[in-house]
Amino acid sequence: MSIIKGNAVVFTQGGPTAVINASWVGVVLGLMDVPEITGIYGSLNGIDGILHENFVDLRAQGRDRLIAVSKTPATALLSTRHKPKDEENQKMLEMFKKYNIRYVFGAGGNDTSESLDLMNDAAKAQGFELRLFHVAKTVDNDLMENDHTPGYASAARYVANAFRGVDMDNKCFGGVYLGVCMGRHAGFLTAASALGRTTPDSGPHLVYVPEKAFDIDRFCRDVEAVYNKYDRCVIAVSEGIEDKNGVPILQLLSADKLEADSHGNVQLSGTGALADALVDKLKSYLQERGVVKKLRARGDTLGYIQRSFPDQSSVDYEETLGLGEFAAKKALEGNIDGSVAIQRVSDDPYKSEYKLVPLKSVAGKTRHLPDAHVNAEGNNVTEAFIKWGKPLVGGLYPFGLLDTNRMVNKQ
Amino acid sequence: MSIIKGNAVVFTQGGPTAVINASWVGVVLGLMDVPEITGIYGSLNGIDGILHENFVDLRAQGRDRLIAVSKTPATALLSTRHKPKDEENQKMLEMFKKYNIRYVFGAGGNDTSESLDLMNDAAKAQGFELRLFHVAKTVDNDLMENDHTPGYASAARYVANAFRGVDMDNKCFGGVYLGVCMGRHAGFLTAASALGRTTPDSGPHLVYVPEKAFDIDRFCRDVEAVYNKYDRCVIAVSEGIEDKNGVPILQLLSADKLEADSHGNVQLSGTGALADALVDKLKSYLQERGVVKKLRARGDTLGYIQRSFPDQSSVDYEETLGLGEFAAKKALEGNIDGSVAIQRVSDDPYKSEYKLVPLKSVAGKTRHLPDAHVNAEGNNVTEAFIKWGKPLVGGLYPFGLLDTNRMVNKQ
Repeated sequence: MSIIKGNAVVFTQGGPTAVINASWVGVVLGLMDVPEITGIYGSLNGIDGILHENFVDLRAQGRDRLIAVSKTPATALLSTRHKPKDEENQKMLEMFKKYNIRYVFGAGGNDTSESLDLMNDAAKAQGFELRLFHVAKTVDNDLMENDHTPGYASAARYVANAFRGVDMDNKCFGGVYLGVCMGRHAGFLTAASALGRTTPDSGPHLVYVPEKAFDIDRFCRDVEAVYNKYDRCVIAVSEGIEDKNGVPILQLLSADKLEADSHGNVQLSGTGALADALVDKLKSYLQERGVVKKLRARGDTLGYIQRSFPDQSSVDYEETLGLGEFAAKKALEGNIDGSVAIQRVSDDPYKSEYKLVPLKSVAGKTRHLPDAHVNAEGNNVTEAFIKWGKPLVGGLYPFGLLDTNRMVNKQ
Repeated sequence: MSIIKGNAVVFTQGGPTAVINASWVGVVLGLMDVPEITGIYGSLNGIDGILHENFVDLRAQGRDRLIAVSKTPATALLSTRHKPKDEENQKMLEMFKKYNIRYVFGAGGNDTSESLDLMNDAAKAQGFELRLFHVAKTVDNDLMENDHTPGYASAARYVANAFRGVDMDNKCFGGVYLGVCMGRHAGFLTAASALGRTTPDSGPHLVYVPEKAFDIDRFCRDVEAVYNKYDRCVIAVSEGIEDKNGVPILQLLSADKLEADSHGNVQLSGTGALADALVDKLKSYLQERGVVKKLRARGDTLGYIQRSFPDQSSVDYEETLGLGEFAAKKALEGNIDGSVAIQRVSDDPYKSEYKLVPLKSVAGKTRHLPDAHVNAEGNNVTEAFIKWGKPLVGGLYPFGLLDTNRMVNKQ
């Protein structure tokens, strides 16, 4: 198939990442010098920009500005979580016809790949030739067919550096530090806390991911064992942890304190409540058991800064820009649709490649941390995870350690 | 006065910072090549190491290792918040005699300068010649006699970069983002959130510091005004905000929900409660006023990562290392005691110098954000603050902005 003459549109959806601009800038760079691509449009606020005809002229921005934007966190094209209804898919199709848009590239998670798949069906039904591509994106790293998703490595880099620092901070006074990480129902981002460890005894000493049922009593005993060994304990916990019946842990810990919304649902994320509830539980457990008289304990919720901190992983940036360019190339080669994904070729030296996979293989599915990445006790990551994650986050901040074997002799 | 022959001890106290190792490494570098300084000891866990004779041999570490440690956050000498009693000051004096320690350098906040002052009195009373120096340290920046304290600039750098990222993130969907910053009763660290602004309309749009009485109703109206203008609002709030009667805001907002400790005190910091309570208040206010049907709002508490994130400000690092060396130099020149402080010579080009000030001028006092750094409404910082703060944090992460004047014409 040849190149169709027409316009292209790019858009971004869902929670932004530190490199999501690189996704669409990569697409634009891949199309920019192709004469048949008459215009390159950036739809503002995801598909809402298509529905309301709000398009930025991206070719007019110039290469230097685009490169600068690609190095900036969050999406300069703004976002939405709007899931289109049937009539909206029809309206978008009208807009594509009105503006002669023949190429559509959406960067987003599995909801976005699903939306693109529906758009595709609508276009095919009317015989309108459209080339539709999904560019994977999510800090949660929960998309099928991807070794890792653009955005994950930068968020993982932040989490690893943050835990490296708080672990050293915790060592100064002892006590318990607990940090709650993003990732919804996938534990990849929480697991990244272990990538910052500096010595065999450094934290996080315990890591809890949603892939394993969380047992509050066992958690307390785990912390007690670490505390008895080191007089301190650093813990990473996923926001999505649940018990063996699938009940969110925050709900179990504070059923009577929480306010339900108008649908009777308890708010489980977006607050510091889980960290605070777990820390309260540890305080009462360790104090009642006489492990410590008054536990010094602090719970932090790492929050939005995980996905928006402006420190991109260099691997993430390069791969994401390249993945966007790959999507453009595939479209120009005559492919009709698909999702572009990152596949790993080798761990050491680290090498990856891009692949075009069917939209339906990504749409509406969730990928989880592999079994081999979590230990049998379900309270830590394995060496297999460290080996997998290390190449992605780039060089972390350097550190030096005192040689405490060189003590002054007691007199 | 000449150099006394004997040993030197360095220690660190209070909450660590990203550059506190540079404070004592600077002292060690300043003493290392002086033959009269027979040994250089690092007391572990602040003054507790002196009481229990736990000293690391610092000269034996070698210069390269010390430099690597100086670039590492948190204190490799560990810390304590222990305030010595009279008999402990006597015991420390015995230890100084036993180990022939003639030089004492403590890096810490105003509690540490007070402890050093008491040690000094005890030594003078017994006619034991001791040279005692306080090296200023605190991310709160609340020490008298200092233009800014070692550690502040790196924490400020983190806060500025974090708000730069979350502001861009907030722009993608709109809504309210509120971040609670450290600083106890001083607003310097919260104010640093404004140093990451990228454009005249970027956040934080509102900044609340403890130096100004916080009025909940006025706060709600402030947010409403910003929200009406931008469909979003990014807010930085100090953990130490109080109302006009000095009552902590968290206590006012959630008196019935909080648990008091055994002394009847409500826990006001170290949890995500203040951010959550303020966000809840904004949700109900803006929804009841009909400003928005369902407010998208998130409150983060920036937590310990503010002081331990491993990304040192280069200005902070160089100044802190230099301040330690300056303390060593002053001790070798024959000064008996004092606190070493950073003074500003000029804003642009930025230039600072070191000064030896009396221990009592720092001990037990608190410095606050100057009036000129907060606007008349008490809801933002001024240009004077920006001018003061900018040179300290070093270059922030770069960014690029789309030119949204270049829109595609509607057809």
